[in-house]
Amino acid sequence: MTDRSPLRDLSAPPFVTRHVGPSDAEQARMLQAVGYASVADLVAVAVPGAIRADKPLDLPRAASETEAVAELRDLAGRNRVLTSMIGLGYHDTITPAVIRRNLLENPGWYTAYTPYQPEISQGRLEALLNFQTMVSDLAGLDVAGASLLDEATAAAEAMTLAHRAGRGRGVRFVVDADALPQTKAVLATRAEPLGIELVEADLAAGLPEGDLFGVLVQYPGASGRLAGFQAVAEAAHERGALVVAAADLLALTLLEAPGTLGADIAIGSTQRFGVPLGFGGPHAAYMAVREGLQRQLPGRLVGVSKDADGHQAYRLALQTREQHIRREKATSNICTAQVLLAVIASMYAVYHGPEGLRRIAQRVHRHAAVLAAGLRAGGVEVVHDEFFDTVRAHVPGRAGEIVAAAVALGVNLRQDGPDHVGVTCDETTTAGHLRDVWEAFGCADAVLDDLDTATADALPAGLLRTTGYLTHPVFSAHHSETSMLRYLRRLQDKDIALDRSMIPLGSCTMKLNATTEMEPITWPEFAGVHPYAPAGQAEGYLRLIGDLESWLAEVTGYAAVSLQPNAGSQGEFAGLLAIRAYHRANGDDARDVCLIPSSAHGTNAASAVMAGMRVVVVACDDQGNVDVPDLTAKIAKHADRLAAIMVTYPSTHGVYEETITEICELVHQAGGQVYVDGANLNALVGLAKPGWFGADVSHLNLHKTFCIPHGGGGPGIGPVAVREHLARYLPSHPMESGPVGPVSAAPYGSAGILPISWAYVRMMGADGLRAATEQAILSANYVARRLAPHYPVLYTGREGLVAHECIVDLRQITKDTGVTVDDVAKRLIDYGFHAPTMSFPVAGTLMIEPTESEDLAELDRFCDAMIAIRGEIGKVADGTYDRDDNPLRNAPHTAESLLADPWPHSYTRTEAAYPVPDLTDAKYWPPVRRIDQAYGDRNLVCACPPLEAYED
Amino acid sequence: MTDRSPLRDLSAPPFVTRHVGPSDAEQARMLQAVGYASVADLVAVAVPGAIRADKPLDLPRAASETEAVAELRDLAGRNRVLTSMIGLGYHDTITPAVIRRNLLENPGWYTAYTPYQPEISQGRLEALLNFQTMVSDLAGLDVAGASLLDEATAAAEAMTLAHRAGRGRGVRFVVDADALPQTKAVLATRAEPLGIELVEADLAAGLPEGDLFGVLVQYPGASGRLAGFQAVAEAAHERGALVVAAADLLALTLLEAPGTLGADIAIGSTQRFGVPLGFGGPHAAYMAVREGLQRQLPGRLVGVSKDADGHQAYRLALQTREQHIRREKATSNICTAQVLLAVIASMYAVYHGPEGLRRIAQRVHRHAAVLAAGLRAGGVEVVHDEFFDTVRAHVPGRAGEIVAAAVALGVNLRQDGPDHVGVTCDETTTAGHLRDVWEAFGCADAVLDDLDTATADALPAGLLRTTGYLTHPVFSAHHSETSMLRYLRRLQDKDIALDRSMIPLGSCTMKLNATTEMEPITWPEFAGVHPYAPAGQAEGYLRLIGDLESWLAEVTGYAAVSLQPNAGSQGEFAGLLAIRAYHRANGDDARDVCLIPSSAHGTNAASAVMAGMRVVVVACDDQGNVDVPDLTAKIAKHADRLAAIMVTYPSTHGVYEETITEICELVHQAGGQVYVDGANLNALVGLAKPGWFGADVSHLNLHKTFCIPHGGGGPGIGPVAVREHLARYLPSHPMESGPVGPVSAAPYGSAGILPISWAYVRMMGADGLRAATEQAILSANYVARRLAPHYPVLYTGREGLVAHECIVDLRQITKDTGVTVDDVAKRLIDYGFHAPTMSFPVAGTLMIEPTESEDLAELDRFCDAMIAIRGEIGKVADGTYDRDDNPLRNAPHTAESLLADPWPHSYTRTEAAYPVPDLTDAKYWPPVRRIDQAYGDRNLVCACPPLEAYED
Repeated sequence: MTDRSPLRDLSAPPFVTRHVGPSDAEQARMLQAVGYASVADLVAVAVPGAIRADKPLDLPRAASETEAVAELRDLAGRNRVLTSMIGLGYHDTITPAVIRRNLLENPGWYTAYTPYQPEISQGRLEALLNFQTMVSDLAGLDVAGASLLDEATAAAEAMTLAHRAGRGRGVRFVVDADALPQTKAVLATRAEPLGIELVEADLAAGLPEGDLFGVLVQYPGASGRLAGFQAVAEAAHERGALVVAAADLLALTLLEAPGTLGADIAIGSTQRFGVPLGFGGPHAAYMAVREGLQRQLPGRLVGVSKDADGHQAYRLALQTREQHIRREKATSNICTAQVLLAVIASMYAVYHGPEGLRRIAQRVHRHAAVLAAGLRAGGVEVVHDEFFDTVRAHVPGRAGEIVAAAVALGVNLRQDGPDHVGVTCDETTTAGHLRDVWEAFGCADAVLDDLDTATADALPAGLLRTTGYLTHPVFSAHHSETSMLRYLRRLQDKDIALDRSMIPLGSCTMKLNATTEMEPITWPEFAGVHPYAPAGQAEGYLRLIGDLESWLAEVTGYAAVSLQPNAGSQGEFAGLLAIRAYHRANGDDARDVCLIPSSAHGTNAASAVMAGMRVVVVACDDQGNVDVPDLTAKIAKHADRLAAIMVTYPSTHGVYEETITEICELVHQAGGQVYVDGANLNALVGLAKPGWFGADVSHLNLHKTFCIPHGGGGPGIGPVAVREHLARYLPSHPMESGPVGPVSAAPYGSAGILPISWAYVRMMGADGLRAATEQAILSANYVARRLAPHYPVLYTGREGLVAHECIVDLRQITKDTGVTVDDVAKRLIDYGFHAPTMSFPVAGTLMIEPTESEDLAELDRFCDAMIAIRGEIGKVADGTYDRDDNPLRNAPHTAESLLADPWPHSYTRTEAAYPVPDLTDAKYWPPVRRIDQAYGDRNLVCACPPLEAYED
Repeated sequence: MTDRSPLRDLSAPPFVTRHVGPSDAEQARMLQAVGYASVADLVAVAVPGAIRADKPLDLPRAASETEAVAELRDLAGRNRVLTSMIGLGYHDTITPAVIRRNLLENPGWYTAYTPYQPEISQGRLEALLNFQTMVSDLAGLDVAGASLLDEATAAAEAMTLAHRAGRGRGVRFVVDADALPQTKAVLATRAEPLGIELVEADLAAGLPEGDLFGVLVQYPGASGRLAGFQAVAEAAHERGALVVAAADLLALTLLEAPGTLGADIAIGSTQRFGVPLGFGGPHAAYMAVREGLQRQLPGRLVGVSKDADGHQAYRLALQTREQHIRREKATSNICTAQVLLAVIASMYAVYHGPEGLRRIAQRVHRHAAVLAAGLRAGGVEVVHDEFFDTVRAHVPGRAGEIVAAAVALGVNLRQDGPDHVGVTCDETTTAGHLRDVWEAFGCADAVLDDLDTATADALPAGLLRTTGYLTHPVFSAHHSETSMLRYLRRLQDKDIALDRSMIPLGSCTMKLNATTEMEPITWPEFAGVHPYAPAGQAEGYLRLIGDLESWLAEVTGYAAVSLQPNAGSQGEFAGLLAIRAYHRANGDDARDVCLIPSSAHGTNAASAVMAGMRVVVVACDDQGNVDVPDLTAKIAKHADRLAAIMVTYPSTHGVYEETITEICELVHQAGGQVYVDGANLNALVGLAKPGWFGADVSHLNLHKTFCIPHGGGGPGIGPVAVREHLARYLPSHPMESGPVGPVSAAPYGSAGILPISWAYVRMMGADGLRAATEQAILSANYVARRLAPHYPVLYTGREGLVAHECIVDLRQITKDTGVTVDDVAKRLIDYGFHAPTMSFPVAGTLMIEPTESEDLAELDRFCDAMIAIRGEIGKVADGTYDRDDNPLRNAPHTAESLLADPWPHSYTRTEAAYPVPDLTDAKYWPPVRRIDQAYGDRNLVCACPPLEAYED
């Protein structure tokens, strides 16, 4: 028989062929250009033998997309989505469909990078400015940032902000006894290494005696109790302490603003503004501060500035705090945000407007008030007379049975010990839910309409909101779906995301976020689960989490993984806490020195400081590698106090350092632990395992290597992976106790997006993952080879090879011509590209990471652009172009500026706009010209400007 | 109690507030501008009292979006999605997720209009050109059109094409006995009124004797039988007949092309190229023809032309056939296509490429071959030795039990009488499915791997494909998901759809296609059902269809509705067939005259001709209304032969004619039936019912009034609604017989998108639907009032009011200044707008329909643009602008052309690009300048040009 191919040879092309950009033929051409006969040959040279894993990953056979979807549907079906009335900072909400489809499910939004290049990020920057305006309006405070990770970590950031701001006011921070339990737990985790003493107090009884640098009040309280805190605030201020209010943003549409009541800082979650529960995240937390504290704000702050033509433009303000966290003096390690979720929350406010939000809040409250009345009518003791959305019932000995009865009716309530049940209403609450709750309490005789008529609101008269909010026109302009749809499209079109062109960001691994990975996250069975729902209702999630933990452990060579950290920085912190706890358990309390090479990400040092460690910097040699003699000396100097070393591998210079195993040994010999930062894991997966070549702990960035999209600047997920001896020191569940406390509010962090990484590993399998890594290495070397004749490539390993990224050096070019990395980066926008990473890890350079997902045509298009730009630089050098008036210095060029009459430049309009011919088919037009960063920082405006400001 | 609003006052804002653009405040301002105190006052004047319905629609209370989704999930849950091995022209397929999300679920694609304005449609025109290239390559024929409605109607169109082309060759059309049953049924429906005689023949025995003008062969046959048809083709050609091959596009990747085998025409479905089953549709059918027949092609044909700068550009070729079907001589009433589905199918081919498609076909075939071997090994008689995907088993007396056994295992097979079972493999077939089938047949001992090894392919050696296909580079460039994603985005960005700006197309009702309406159509429970699945598996669909039929009957005042027609034109045809059948049943065989006012849509006449009627045109008076004296005269003249009148209401002039009831009475008195074309139903819903004010039958356009998106030029749905006496003459199920045959291949037409209209009616309720109509009327009158000082508004009703659209007259302007409607339409592109309907129903005018979904800001933006353009016309008139070189004549302006040096025009670049200031925030840049239509028709190119052609 010759006239047939057997079925096994006819299987559908595996997902890896969709994920990896270059075809086999393209790969062959790239290998030829780089000078290797095969990928295996290339890898054999590029990756040091000492770290190479000697056997394939032990993972399930790669599933096809169809199979993976079927398995995910099965997992989804194992979650039971009950009506959630648990509350505790997580509330069911209605994501407007127009926002879900056109934002949350739209790669134009979710594949965008952090807006470090503001000229190609005006869309999401506007959305984030709306977010800041919304938060500062509702909080009644002057400046709000553009989102933090979750309410609990935001509370911790507020605590440390108060600590910094209140130097000399002691070490005590008072926490409302009625704060959310997860907030208390995370505060405790964060306070201890910094020497902060947490004091829990019933603030209804006033502030406790003694020094304090700050106090946190929950408004309304976790129990539902609603009261003003003006007296507490006054007392705190008298003692020089700052007041932090953890406030519910929806409640604030009815209640007087925290700022008005005396808060200096407000924090909280914006989840209930349209962001799905997702078993705990991702959601955007907020922080707003009083004038005077804005330069202390952790995380991102969007500000208004102007461009080269004087037009208003947005960009990240005070950016140095974020991108250049100073190593030794770092205080917060926050370096991401929850942009996608913040944008959703802001769009929810735009779509509903102030009146719409107020009406939602009224309905939520009204349901709670009627609910309470029904319980009282049925003889149930309701603890608080005044509340917003949460009714606390005192049911001695009956709490368990009531909660069980509610579950049987399809409703989750909150049990608080044997005697108390909490019931929280939200936007989705209906009359039917109230009846179910009454039935569960045995109050089935309650008649809703009668109670509704007879029952007053339960909001304290003195707290009713008198100050306005969301008065900016944007919150009143887009209330029809058509208008909302167009607003989303208009903003999206201003930005470059992965759906338009490659984003060659070194260290950020902007690879494909495949649709099959993304689709499940908005399935109701994943989106609708409360993080504290009974485990039996989350079986699908728990299986998926178990799979992913074990797969990531296999990939990294570690024994255990925690998915709780919801950003890489949080993973670092959790990893260092594990090291700290380990030393302490061994009686090594003095081990507090953390060695960090000078090439490290700034967050490393910041995390070390947060974990109570002292940072000692280790030098790098001319090749960018850790200077082993210096390391040896530093180890010797700090031997008894050595806690750990934190190294990134491959290094932030994009090189596989040959000495990594030696470094690990040296540290281990001195009793230290080795932390390998997993930022560059995309260069290792399937080839080498940190847990095998000497490391004790790593964090991974699922939003880099494992396909979580960057979302325009978040969400991220930063799991921490450890060897066996550290496993017991992984973060604990926020509602349970363990040797190390929780680092996030939700037990599994941003669980709602874990299906993405699950699907990626499931569909790639061992061979696919390795093939991706190999292609990433090949692509980086291909780009390096193509660019090398035009730009010096900085730092290479054996035979001049790089790892998965390469650094091109512009310092000499800048010296010779005045053309800077900024000029090249902005000029790339005219060519339709997002710039590579600028001036990290080395000032005056560009770091390029192509990833495996870009096909040869796109890699060549990018290289062609870089080479064409080099030609333009040449024209500056040879005087063809004026040094101060050339297409580089004036980049990017808006269409509007190109139509100006008379044309003021020495080059042509066409040279400016269409330097290479393929741009005529698909030209990206930046909405603004180059933005004046300094102007914006000198004139800090962080809320939507009035419309007049848009006039020229 | 005063401190509370009761819950009933706090309900979420109803969907109508999202669907209707203007807020209450905006509506008040618009009323003021139009001069009425309330909408009720306006409507009381605008809508003739004689037709006003006297009570509200009897519909279920409006559901919220959340409630509607819950009900749709419940309906979805009542469909059981089994593995479909039924075949019969419908095959399960894997829609690549990247295509589903970024095309099928993307308003940038699905809200686009038909590409009549090619300059803002280059993206979908390119996709459609890919479609044509794919079809003509695979079919081996010279020219392919850009999609027909379904395979059965495509077969009917091929038959009538052959009839036209073969005049003098008699009236007989031979149909392959092995053609799809629904194809035979639709052919019969279409043949009879035209006097075509269908002859069914076993073509294996050769052509039957006698005259014939054409023959249709199914390739492969419906039974699975696979054989060449060269001998039949030769014999047919010898007798001067044309050969139509109904061919499976996937099979053609392995089998020799129909054109090579002698077909003159090929037709078929492209459904299995990634388009979900959807219980029967919508899917795109194809037609390809030999050189020489292209000017006979029904439907749309995309062609290549050039723009004003000589750049290559796409547009609809030979457009007059489509937009201006000549009334009396029309032969096809096709005036839409299945663009969205054709684009999906073409992208499926782009994503898989020729090798990928071939491999899919090989796998499908291999599964079938192994399946047959397993059956034979188990002692089952397999009828055909050679087949592609379908195995026909002869199981005397056992067919029913086998099919039932398969259902129990989760698989649907095809039962054909008591003795035969058909089993069709598709892209989703797995080894597990084969095992299930074997088990159902009692052949459970079959061992797949052994059979696979031992079994040869079952394709006839002489038919193996030797000719190439899909050699154009576009089919090899986008095989990674990243590249595919960007290709989709790039094309999308070239086009204007509703997600960017209003599309004020008169008679096309481009209203909101709400996300909540759209989301369910890609749920697997709706997408995955085969049209001939057992009814018990489609309970959800059948309930939804029942709801929608009854709601539409209530809205229109008719007794019965059929959702089968999958375009408005098919609804017209079905309605006229009902009239014809009614007359015949009454013995009135001679009634064959159809009166049609001169203002009618061209399709009316074409449908009448197809239904075997003679068209008699009735004049219109100066006001655009039916000329009642002429009507009276025509009725008198044709009294005995009067079959019907077809009128559009409100008229195509956008006016509520006062005489409509009189017209109906006159026709009825003469024994005729009244057909009211429902194209303008958006001006009636909730206010008046055609079934109550005198009409006997109407078709509706769900893609106008009931929110089915236009999809860039299809799908449409054109239900037909009739009074009680016509109910039995509605189209029958394609697999059942009835007084009137089916007009579509699937029993419920494009059932897969009916959830859209269901959700719309469900969420609007009676009040919402009426409010939408009222706002549509108000908006049209607002636009008319704003434009009237600048452009004459043609045709108005009482007190100068229009209905839901208005016509502005440019004829005098053109005479005075040389500025044409084309100039204004193209200049609107520079302002970011899609033009209104051009020169319909009156040459030299623009018809504007704003719909209720546009808010005041957008209406004003449009009016401002029109007024600014009038100012520009004024500059032409007063000589400020040159008559031949001005921004109107040169519109639209591409960015590239605006950067030209030297600037050749007498106006500035900025005047050209930014005539109004708000454009600087969101400028749409057309990818081409004005397209030379005549050039393209003279030089007809209808497939992707070679890359060299793209060079200047």
